[in-house]
Amino acid sequence: MNGHGEEQIVFEIGVVVPKSNVQEEKETYDCVETLVDEFRKVGLIVQRVSGLSDEFLKLAAPLEILGRSAAKMQMKKPTNIGMDLQFEWDQVDAFVKQPDGSLFSWCERFQCNRHLIYGIVNNSNSDIVLKHDGVKFYWEVGESLLQRLESEGIVKLVFPLHDDTKRKKLLRSWALNWWDLTNQPIDEIYSYYGTKVAIYFAFLGRYTTWMLFPAAFAFIMQLVDFGSLQWLVLPLFFVCVILWSVIFFQFWKRKNSALLARWQINYTVGAGQGHKDLGKWNSHQSPMDLTKGVAMDKTKEKQLYQKYEWFGHLMRFRNDAIIILSIICLQLPFELAYAHLYEVIGSDFMKFGLTAIYIFIIQYFTKIGGKISVKLIKYENNENTECRADSLVYKVFGLYFMQSYIGIFYHALLHRNFKTLRQVLIQRLIISEVLDNLLENGLPYLKYNYKKYRAIRNKKKRDKGSSAEKIHFDSRVEKEYLKPAYSASIGEELEDGLFDDFLELALQFGMIMMFACAFPLAFVFATANNIMEIRTDAFKLLTMLKRPVPRASTTIGAWSNIFQFLIVMSICTNSALLVWLYDSEGKWKIEPGLAAILIMEHILLLIKFVFNRVVPENLLYLFKQEPAWVKANRMRNTSQAQDMCSKQLLRNISGGENSSAGPKND
Amino acid sequence: MNGHGEEQIVFEIGVVVPKSNVQEEKETYDCVETLVDEFRKVGLIVQRVSGLSDEFLKLAAPLEILGRSAAKMQMKKPTNIGMDLQFEWDQVDAFVKQPDGSLFSWCERFQCNRHLIYGIVNNSNSDIVLKHDGVKFYWEVGESLLQRLESEGIVKLVFPLHDDTKRKKLLRSWALNWWDLTNQPIDEIYSYYGTKVAIYFAFLGRYTTWMLFPAAFAFIMQLVDFGSLQWLVLPLFFVCVILWSVIFFQFWKRKNSALLARWQINYTVGAGQGHKDLGKWNSHQSPMDLTKGVAMDKTKEKQLYQKYEWFGHLMRFRNDAIIILSIICLQLPFELAYAHLYEVIGSDFMKFGLTAIYIFIIQYFTKIGGKISVKLIKYENNENTECRADSLVYKVFGLYFMQSYIGIFYHALLHRNFKTLRQVLIQRLIISEVLDNLLENGLPYLKYNYKKYRAIRNKKKRDKGSSAEKIHFDSRVEKEYLKPAYSASIGEELEDGLFDDFLELALQFGMIMMFACAFPLAFVFATANNIMEIRTDAFKLLTMLKRPVPRASTTIGAWSNIFQFLIVMSICTNSALLVWLYDSEGKWKIEPGLAAILIMEHILLLIKFVFNRVVPENLLYLFKQEPAWVKANRMRNTSQAQDMCSKQLLRNISGGENSSAGPKND
Repeated sequence: MNGHGEEQIVFEIGVVVPKSNVQEEKETYDCVETLVDEFRKVGLIVQRVSGLSDEFLKLAAPLEILGRSAAKMQMKKPTNIGMDLQFEWDQVDAFVKQPDGSLFSWCERFQCNRHLIYGIVNNSNSDIVLKHDGVKFYWEVGESLLQRLESEGIVKLVFPLHDDTKRKKLLRSWALNWWDLTNQPIDEIYSYYGTKVAIYFAFLGRYTTWMLFPAAFAFIMQLVDFGSLQWLVLPLFFVCVILWSVIFFQFWKRKNSALLARWQINYTVGAGQGHKDLGKWNSHQSPMDLTKGVAMDKTKEKQLYQKYEWFGHLMRFRNDAIIILSIICLQLPFELAYAHLYEVIGSDFMKFGLTAIYIFIIQYFTKIGGKISVKLIKYENNENTECRADSLVYKVFGLYFMQSYIGIFYHALLHRNFKTLRQVLIQRLIISEVLDNLLENGLPYLKYNYKKYRAIRNKKKRDKGSSAEKIHFDSRVEKEYLKPAYSASIGEELEDGLFDDFLELALQFGMIMMFACAFPLAFVFATANNIMEIRTDAFKLLTMLKRPVPRASTTIGAWSNIFQFLIVMSICTNSALLVWLYDSEGKWKIEPGLAAILIMEHILLLIKFVFNRVVPENLLYLFKQEPAWVKANRMRNTSQAQDMCSKQLLRNISGGENSSAGPKND
Repeated sequence: MNGHGEEQIVFEIGVVVPKSNVQEEKETYDCVETLVDEFRKVGLIVQRVSGLSDEFLKLAAPLEILGRSAAKMQMKKPTNIGMDLQFEWDQVDAFVKQPDGSLFSWCERFQCNRHLIYGIVNNSNSDIVLKHDGVKFYWEVGESLLQRLESEGIVKLVFPLHDDTKRKKLLRSWALNWWDLTNQPIDEIYSYYGTKVAIYFAFLGRYTTWMLFPAAFAFIMQLVDFGSLQWLVLPLFFVCVILWSVIFFQFWKRKNSALLARWQINYTVGAGQGHKDLGKWNSHQSPMDLTKGVAMDKTKEKQLYQKYEWFGHLMRFRNDAIIILSIICLQLPFELAYAHLYEVIGSDFMKFGLTAIYIFIIQYFTKIGGKISVKLIKYENNENTECRADSLVYKVFGLYFMQSYIGIFYHALLHRNFKTLRQVLIQRLIISEVLDNLLENGLPYLKYNYKKYRAIRNKKKRDKGSSAEKIHFDSRVEKEYLKPAYSASIGEELEDGLFDDFLELALQFGMIMMFACAFPLAFVFATANNIMEIRTDAFKLLTMLKRPVPRASTTIGAWSNIFQFLIVMSICTNSALLVWLYDSEGKWKIEPGLAAILIMEHILLLIKFVFNRVVPENLLYLFKQEPAWVKANRMRNTSQAQDMCSKQLLRNISGGENSSAGPKND
């Protein structure tokens, strides 16, 4: 698109409108025509594709149009001197190019495009009358045309389009390139899908590579008999696995920042900035902004901020309390009841029936939990969408954690039933390997085919008898439109499909880590699974789904804390497992007093951990290190600075750039 | 000094030179005269005070001279728009004033002064001959005069002077203001002593205030008999104390950043900047700087950085391993031997003798340990002085931790001897309360008096018989010169007296937290002690010692991690104590297998904690989140940007400031 791709226009945004009926007269100007005209007026290249039942407007923006839009949005971009400055089209040389040579990243291009197409407003002095299918409605002064048409139901969807050349190239070099095992063309993924997806795949790749070590260890343990030292092997495996996981996550942070540096993303500033921009789209303005215009003295302002901040803390605290209590009081008994019944019931047939009922119920349970979480989060004053998404992740993970592990805990720790435990673990791992991957890829395919079938049937009904020949989809854009979106199973407003992929990964990590001593071979299964996962996820993203809306988050976010939490948990559970395993004669009786104190100790350690790890950044806004009014002050000042000096600085850099580039080259 | 203090010149730097002998002829120009002339040439106001055996040059710099020096140093200062920019004297209005109305903080003033007086170099084309006491030496071209005189032993000391009006005001409002309990005039302390000292006292005050809660709880526990619920009280106390400490440290971080915001210190940028500037003074240029001038391609440079970085990690790892191993192999057996002997020996007289020998030996042990640590640290490539100081703190704290607690652990956990444990705790707390405070204040006073006595005796010897009258110290500056410096007991090169004060606090915290269940009243003792500590420390700083050299660190640094570590430790030790306490019949036997697994679990939890808490920031440079070459690249770019655009931006701000202040006022 940018720079080297000028010989070929790449359409990046698709707009779905109803097919214009040919029988209508030309004179009554349809609102779709107006829309196309307006698109062309702002400088977009529009291609109209007629599909079976809808018409598709494919939009492409020349680089200059994008640049001017970015300048209008006051987008911040890293410059050659390392600072992020407001973009100016005249000073384009001052800004850093992407690794693939283009000026804007996919995320930035998408933002600019959205700004362009949603920025078409009625600039005249009076409302304009629009018509569609004979129905008249008004396009009010100052209103966005696209939003109006969306609310009238005429524009059905605005979605990012796949770039077919790049997609096919990625399909070859990434999704179908099985022999690379964990290697992936991360840079190309980044430039095609944006930061968040690329970070996910980079993480998955690294994680799988690192997992080869414990998998090899586990495999050797299974094969070799260590004779009299056999009893030492399991504790050694436990220690190694914990150290492995701790070190891996430290190295991952390192890798993450190296990736961001390679992609020219300014970690400290850029991340927050990106969030903010995306946050704008999802509206949800914080009450802080409301005070902006109002004149008031400093102390009053501070008080207001503090009040607002503490109210937010309170809401967050309340929400977390609700979630935790409902998990403990509702979900825990339910899960325990299921586990207990499973243990008690003798016949396999009954077990099967019980499991079927159980699965049926938890489907609803999870959905309801997700909905409640999303509703609760709306009352929290999280700074931006990514924060809200993180808050959701914590809440929903609590649910899934109970769901996935309580049964296993029951078998492992209460009943010391290692046979059932291993069975359950193998079942889950195989299920996650085969079934999940099948579902992940199969479900979108089925959905797509059903939609296709319906569209064709509708078409047939309409032109009944006109032609008996088979109807084909000629246009790629229509196929894409029918593909399902990359959306989360829970809380679609806040999360995309990455939520499910990360959830799967985290649950797997918990499974293999927390019960490492009971079933070391799980690491081998997980490694095999993850190597498959990389390619199937890639395949799914490239062929089965619509191109996802790019998101700006630059780390794995809340998931990092969840993985850390799982490591701590696994230290405790494995210790318990070891005690159970070595105490085969049941001699190591633990008195209730001792047990109570040990449990108290572990709960306190957990609280300490959660406070230190999760709280300062995310969970309880309550203990955020920087008081809100301090931060607000700082932000306001900085934005003032940038507003004032940005242009002048840029001119400086553009001028100075050559001289500064000089010493590097000689 | 700045702004409102212009009616009175405040001398802030003292230089000690030998008293010029009157019998010498005027023609042979002494080097001291040259020094004074040069000081006057750069614009300093010099006052010469003749003491008993030395002469004192009191130096004061007018604001403009300081400002120009700051500009020459390329000092970064926060501007009114929230960015840190290079200081320019012409654009002085653009920069934020200190809370007390002055332009520069004490730390900045001190830096400028040092830059001024050490910046006097021989600018002529030939070496200049200087003379002192008939001995000739050369002041080479480009050499700093003060450094030359220091190396010749003529300038004995350059030290910051007390500002008597401010000092007396602080003495009234702070050191002698006992009725304020934990309240202190932190802002005035900041403007007089700089960030680090002010942060220490703010921390001490907060900590003491918060400690009133557990102290009250402990007091109530002591007085009230809860009847049948008595057995519940101790575990409850344990849980409350842990939660209290966890929450306190979260709130402290908040308070810390609020303080920094009030003092206009830009947390993220300013801190690093301040460090760097101070680091310059202590030389130790990193090899990274050496590559600056050399032209090389990017990959080679990256390799070089990585090599340098990993070598640093290796050294750090080696050093930590040496320290940890020597503590475990040398100190641990020694401490255990002492504790065992103390337990075994019956007679009180023998016990007393043993303790005396023990105390004598550990004095040497600690000193040797400190010296070894300082030497080891020199081989680490820590970024700046504060990082080096932190590295030292960790290492030395390991030593003290063993020294202070191993004996107590021995009594508490191995022998379940609660009587001895309580005795030891009370002893230590009372000793720390009375003896330490006495020593802290008494020792400097004795030192000062001894020096004074020696000075007078020397004087008497010299003018033997000339006058029989008593000799007085007339000049305040000479008294200050004789006062001891605020220096650390260990590693003076890296740390000042705050090290000892923080160490005392940390050891006390460990003592009361780790054995909370054995002796809750310790909190009451500690609270009383800390209330005293605030005033005695203040008194010591204001009257007993030279004014300390200001340091730029903006947090409590390594100590924060040490406190966190102590909290985790105290969860474990208190659990063990509870087990011992409630298991009065000895029925809760723990099998060796179970014990081994529990110990392994706790060690792993500790490793996890240390990695996550301490490593990313400080301890093992190895796992630093940002690879060195990424950071170096970023830093270089940013500094380039600031060099280029700083001036232009500033002019903008100075111009734009009024218009931006406009909307605020209406």
